[in-house]
Amino acid sequence: MGKKKISDAVIRRLPKYYRYLGDLLENGINRVSSNDLSKMTGFTASQIRQDLNNFGGFGQQGYGYDAMNLREEINKILGLNQKFRVVIVGAGNIGQAVANYAGFYEEGFEVLALFDKNPKLIGLRIRDIEIKDLDDLPGYLDDNEIDMGVICTPKAVSQDVADILTSHGIKAIWNFAPTDIKVDDDVAIEHVRMNESLYTLAYYYKQKNDTEE
Amino acid sequence: MGKKKISDAVIRRLPKYYRYLGDLLENGINRVSSNDLSKMTGFTASQIRQDLNNFGGFGQQGYGYDAMNLREEINKILGLNQKFRVVIVGAGNIGQAVANYAGFYEEGFEVLALFDKNPKLIGLRIRDIEIKDLDDLPGYLDDNEIDMGVICTPKAVSQDVADILTSHGIKAIWNFAPTDIKVDDDVAIEHVRMNESLYTLAYYYKQKNDTEE
Repeated sequence: MGKKKISDAVIRRLPKYYRYLGDLLENGINRVSSNDLSKMTGFTASQIRQDLNNFGGFGQQGYGYDAMNLREEINKILGLNQKFRVVIVGAGNIGQAVANYAGFYEEGFEVLALFDKNPKLIGLRIRDIEIKDLDDLPGYLDDNEIDMGVICTPKAVSQDVADILTSHGIKAIWNFAPTDIKVDDDVAIEHVRMNESLYTLAYYYKQKNDTEE
Repeated sequence: MGKKKISDAVIRRLPKYYRYLGDLLENGINRVSSNDLSKMTGFTASQIRQDLNNFGGFGQQGYGYDAMNLREEINKILGLNQKFRVVIVGAGNIGQAVANYAGFYEEGFEVLALFDKNPKLIGLRIRDIEIKDLDDLPGYLDDNEIDMGVICTPKAVSQDVADILTSHGIKAIWNFAPTDIKVDDDVAIEHVRMNESLYTLAYYYKQKNDTEE
């Protein structure tokens, strides 16, 4: 039986549900209805139920969802129940922030090394993780099983870095460089677009603060 | 005449056009057609033309767009042609990375101060910008004209920080804390959702790397 292709819009809502369920559980709430989730997320209750039905029947009519069970199921769907061995390329401000990113450590992502070409950074440690020479990246990837690369370099070198990662077997890339990166179809890639977020904010600030005509 | 309300989807494409036009100009290309932009962005040429037509007729039939002119027009639409005076609340790894964020300095966003409650950080300087005591934030906002606050605190305090910012006149908030923040309708807010990006990546990595059935 072939795998059903779930739409990207549904997939991107799952981490939101995951976050809200985590907040509920932190507050001692174990049971949640689709209406509750609707109030929290802003999505309609029927959208939420439809989204979750893609993956199985988690709820019970009249009861709602067991929050812990649902969160664990979403954890598995998102692939967070596996370990990810991560390298970060670029040990400047963004790379260091990512190395310290709590979201990694909460979910089984382990940062094994950072890489940079700046001799002032090479040899330093972030959270006891060594910053290694960028020249050693290919060899390191060959000698170690790495699942994910995070690109925190200037945009000019980001495609070259992606090519090194993918040509040495990396199949997941998290990109912070403000540029497009091309990879083959068997490589998963996500871009964190800080500029786009900031400029959208500038637009809405202007909209709300210009005097009315 | 009332302002036409442009859809959020259109607004969020504008920073992408802005980025691509910047790349073209950096490479000495001054003229671009909607077909060129379509190849670069992945949006259809007609979508691009339709988006830009919301704001005026920038292109010429048979010629395309003058890249510099178009970029300047998008700069104005996004409100990037004005100065933004910015404070960052939370001077940990994320706050420091944001203070060093080149995207700010390229577009007239000026970081005037950081705030934190950690005595080990107070008094230090990032790029010659002082880390001030969080207790001094309300007074600082009263004494200085600030346009935007960036929230880089743990999620537990992020709503309180937002409340301080908005009750002292801040109308634009850029939020990095992994939680919802409630603000009044006259406040523009954008959230950078790193967890959601990472977990979506985990999903697609799993999809591409599970063995086929």
